[in-house]
Amino acid sequence: MTRRRTPIAKLGHVAVQTPDLDESLWFFSDVMGLQVTERDGHVAYLRGMRDWEHHSLILIESGERGVDHMAFRTTSAQALADLEETLVEEEGESVSRVDAGEETGLGEAIRVEKFGHSYEFYWDVEKPDAPEGQRSGLKNRVYSESIANRIAPRRIDHVHVNDPGDNADAHDEWLRETLGFQLNERYRTEEGEYWGWWYAVTALPHDIAIHREPADAPTQFHHVAFHLDSLQDLWTAGDICSEHGLEINNRSDGPAMHAITRADCMYVKDPASGVRLELFAGPGYLNFEPDWEPIEWTEGEIGGATSHQWHGGGPTWDGIDYV
Amino acid sequence: MTRRRTPIAKLGHVAVQTPDLDESLWFFSDVMGLQVTERDGHVAYLRGMRDWEHHSLILIESGERGVDHMAFRTTSAQALADLEETLVEEEGESVSRVDAGEETGLGEAIRVEKFGHSYEFYWDVEKPDAPEGQRSGLKNRVYSESIANRIAPRRIDHVHVNDPGDNADAHDEWLRETLGFQLNERYRTEEGEYWGWWYAVTALPHDIAIHREPADAPTQFHHVAFHLDSLQDLWTAGDICSEHGLEINNRSDGPAMHAITRADCMYVKDPASGVRLELFAGPGYLNFEPDWEPIEWTEGEIGGATSHQWHGGGPTWDGIDYV
Amino acid sequence: MTRRRTPIAKLGHVAVQTPDLDESLWFFSDVMGLQVTERDGHVAYLRGMRDWEHHSLILIESGERGVDHMAFRTTSAQALADLEETLVEEEGESVSRVDAGEETGLGEAIRVEKFGHSYEFYWDVEKPDAPEGQRSGLKNRVYSESIANRIAPRRIDHVHVNDPGDNADAHDEWLRETLGFQLNERYRTEEGEYWGWWYAVTALPHDIAIHREPADAPTQFHHVAFHLDSLQDLWTAGDICSEHGLEINNRSDGPAMHAITRADCMYVKDPASGVRLELFAGPGYLNFEPDWEPIEWTEGEIGGATSHQWHGGGPTWDGIDYV
Amino acid sequence: MTRRRTPIAKLGHVAVQTPDLDESLWFFSDVMGLQVTERDGHVAYLRGMRDWEHHSLILIESGERGVDHMAFRTTSAQALADLEETLVEEEGESVSRVDAGEETGLGEAIRVEKFGHSYEFYWDVEKPDAPEGQRSGLKNRVYSESIANRIAPRRIDHVHVNDPGDNADAHDEWLRETLGFQLNERYRTEEGEYWGWWYAVTALPHDIAIHREPADAPTQFHHVAFHLDSLQDLWTAGDICSEHGLEINNRSDGPAMHAITRADCMYVKDPASGVRLELFAGPGYLNFEPDWEPIEWTEGEIGGATSHQWHGGGPTWDGIDYV
Repeated sequence: MTRRRTPIAKLGHVAVQTPDLDESLWFFSDVMGLQVTERDGHVAYLRGMRDWEHHSLILIESGERGVDHMAFRTTSAQALADLEETLVEEEGESVSRVDAGEETGLGEAIRVEKFGHSYEFYWDVEKPDAPEGQRSGLKNRVYSESIANRIAPRRIDHVHVNDPGDNADAHDEWLRETLGFQLNERYRTEEGEYWGWWYAVTALPHDIAIHREPADAPTQFHHVAFHLDSLQDLWTAGDICSEHGLEINNRSDGPAMHAITRADCMYVKDPASGVRLELFAGPGYLNFEPDWEPIEWTEGEIGGATSHQWHGGGPTWDGIDYV
Repeated sequence: MTRRRTPIAKLGHVAVQTPDLDESLWFFSDVMGLQVTERDGHVAYLRGMRDWEHHSLILIESGERGVDHMAFRTTSAQALADLEETLVEEEGESVSRVDAGEETGLGEAIRVEKFGHSYEFYWDVEKPDAPEGQRSGLKNRVYSESIANRIAPRRIDHVHVNDPGDNADAHDEWLRETLGFQLNERYRTEEGEYWGWWYAVTALPHDIAIHREPADAPTQFHHVAFHLDSLQDLWTAGDICSEHGLEINNRSDGPAMHAITRADCMYVKDPASGVRLELFAGPGYLNFEPDWEPIEWTEGEIGGATSHQWHGGGPTWDGIDYV
Repeated sequence: MTRRRTPIAKLGHVAVQTPDLDESLWFFSDVMGLQVTERDGHVAYLRGMRDWEHHSLILIESGERGVDHMAFRTTSAQALADLEETLVEEEGESVSRVDAGEETGLGEAIRVEKFGHSYEFYWDVEKPDAPEGQRSGLKNRVYSESIANRIAPRRIDHVHVNDPGDNADAHDEWLRETLGFQLNERYRTEEGEYWGWWYAVTALPHDIAIHREPADAPTQFHHVAFHLDSLQDLWTAGDICSEHGLEINNRSDGPAMHAITRADCMYVKDPASGVRLELFAGPGYLNFEPDWEPIEWTEGEIGGATSHQWHGGGPTWDGIDYV
Repeated sequence: MTRRRTPIAKLGHVAVQTPDLDESLWFFSDVMGLQVTERDGHVAYLRGMRDWEHHSLILIESGERGVDHMAFRTTSAQALADLEETLVEEEGESVSRVDAGEETGLGEAIRVEKFGHSYEFYWDVEKPDAPEGQRSGLKNRVYSESIANRIAPRRIDHVHVNDPGDNADAHDEWLRETLGFQLNERYRTEEGEYWGWWYAVTALPHDIAIHREPADAPTQFHHVAFHLDSLQDLWTAGDICSEHGLEINNRSDGPAMHAITRADCMYVKDPASGVRLELFAGPGYLNFEPDWEPIEWTEGEIGGATSHQWHGGGPTWDGIDYV
């Protein structure tokens, strides 16, 4: 299998609804160190130290706790138009238009609900410089290190979502067939039922992953991940979360090592919105292979002393609703 | 400008000619920690800890010192065929065929000399497991960390070559037009003459870079770079080179920080072949932007106390011939 | 309280009895990366990359599994003689003499069993250079980094022992009064009963610690710790242990962060001898205060999300017997 | 030689005179990340993240640029009294008294000018908690990591001074004989003349070092060093200094590796006071040996490709006057 042509260039951002914008800003900006690009009344736009786009995280103050949408950038304006046509004509989806500027920094975009997940796709986007005094003297960086705290996520990395029962299989097929994602890794029970899939259009181990839940479970957003520069930063993130009394909601309370995707990671929730943030670090692997065969894992190969999967196999699987 | 369709998937390997295979193996394998995949008489095949292909470095014992060829993998078999046609039909180049297996681990490949540089392109390639006892228990890694030394390059990263005078401009155009590389950064004198270009087809800051030399200088290969996991590994590489009396031939003898490509780096030569190895580490930046505008640097922006370009601006520009 | 005059300069080494010397050497040398100074039939002498003395670990092949003795160096020959006199005259202990050379590399030493623990004290000791080819070019290091594996402990750090019931209090008093250790930290239940004490004569957070067990529990040796250069080395140690199927017997299977002593750590047992090794890394703290007041912790201050004590509070408390 | 009894416990602080307190605070606090304990009109008191005492750096606004004094804490009140007696009775020095509270946070202290250097010795000192909101939840740390910037020195490490001609030898003798420092390393020309000496009373590679200058050179203070947690922090310090246009006044503009003391380091001057700050990181070595033989280096062993001493051998030797 060679990598199929994809209309998707990258994961762009996640929009979160929170009942308390100030508390969510405290969590994502003061504690974590994301940079606030713009605050516009009840909406704040944030990004990592090396995110070029206007935002990679939106915080929307509302009466709700949950995820508003997740957004992917297309490879071109034409790719966006073609994708819209496919969604409407071939898949019969109801696609809604987001006017240019409705989401600050973005041109015209489209939204669609697939398998219960709120997807946004866009092409036009602003890439503002950092403000004077925060800008790096190096032209290939956005912000100067002189304003970074000890966590300071560098860029949005991936999203992970929950699908009940057969929805997971349908979602898997759609990500590969319509969006052209490459399947990098997947996981199955000894009986052969898959419960996890990790996909990318970039060289990252994954841009999006899906997790199968029982058939009667809700469709949910599980977490958004941002990338840190080093293991040291991840460790310090655990330290700083402890200083603030923020529970590291990995089952065992410390940075962990994933077998799948081979990353070093930690999970912690924004107390206001309830949205789970994963901090992702470590060399992991970059995947430049045009003929990658998905890595297949079985239950017996993950978890336990010989698996490299420290701390009980990752986070608990409770997610949060789309609102 | 959106990223153009490219027939190239990645940099694959560099083949080196050396008068003393044992000494070159001492340098690249014993000291640096590259893994030997296979030794076949006067030819040895090596790769990094996380290189999937059969080799990312070939050492060929001969009476010569220099570079035999640099090889790029195409995105598909068809892309290779199309590229061959373009080279022969449109560019009038003399393309030679490398039979399957002639280069161990490789299927049929083609070679062409462009602007004095020996290029190889291939599609078919073996991706052998690490031998029993060296293989990682994790399926998304090749070798186990238990066999790594303190340098242990992870994967091939990029090549850098020298072009005299106008050849540089022609090479620049060919890399963009025929090979479809994206230009990420370039450098010019205050008068406006470009002397450096950095290109990628992957998310790396560069897969290949070219440097303009005076019009009467030779066309040369400047260095091949391998990627290390961390700054600590880079620092230790400097330490270990010092223990072996290997001159760190950056002008000022220690790991340095590049402004362009924002990488941490060090240069050292294989004493037998004279080929320069760059060790490349640090977060740098991954480039997922489909509409990247090349970063333009001028002389005044590089070097000196405020430039982040430590140690005099990088290596000296003496390269080595293709043989 | 000013630091009292102490006859003790430092922790020197731990001697282990193992039923399988080859397997213990595989664990401590091949996997962990301690250097073998000398192997003398059924006894092997090892040390860390920057341990100056002849050995900081002895492996003795015998029918037993356990600890033979732990050894502290005195500040001078006179201090050793004075300590012997104190032990015999004031404390009525039965002190045995170890002849010079009986323990390779050591001059004359004394041994005493205090509260069930086998203590050795010595002054004369050899500090051999590393062998040619392994020696660092730097005079202030013992071994060259070029021979280090990815764990390669740097130096012995501390020992931790278990004392049943009131023995713990008596041991505490003896360490302070006779050996002149400074108490850096201690831990008590909410009811006020101490169960842990951390002591040093050096600037380290501790050279020895004691843990109170129930009154009917055995007196045991809990672990010996070696220091690593960095958090990255500790993380890789967890990775490498996983590659070898060695259980990281911290309760939750990954490197952890201690609140007490503020160190980053990991525990793993030598499968042959059953002796627990702690790998200890991180900045921790160096204590140069001559009027240090012991830090007092209570149960409620350790463990849980806000304690920085990741992973359930450290290792399980099963130790191993002195044999 | 066994370590002699010393009245000195540790280096305590350095007091600097600056013509512009705000600019010096910008450099030491805003850029470097030292914490301000107290600002009292024209005097500011600072310390590192893990310095327990009230201050490890004093900035005094005056018309001058230079060092006011360097201060060492004694091992006890009695040791201070004895030292004063020795200085006055045996060495005939003019010792001045500093009243309790004259230097905020300090009890009564004494000052003496030895070989042109302004020494202060003290015993009584306050060890204030960090303010609420900046205090670590861990009792063995002073400040929380949540307030640290990316440099954030941890503790004062050492001072280095220049002595002209024979003064260097006399100073060497006094440090060993009167203050009881242990000589850890020294350096000599091929002809046998010593030009550098590194001393400690703690386990650090040095608490103070002296450098011989030509006989007609001034007696000067060369630098004060603070310790960082990791190589990564040191590298980032170079990055941040570049962002601010601060010249890294090591001869070659980047973090370097010292052969002597085996530390990773960087030098940069406070633009207001002209005082040179060394940032010191890396594992170096801790010295617990009670019978340490000074390491002897000769010129031929330092500098150059095989010496591990990167970047031309360290800083330039211009110091700053005591004022």
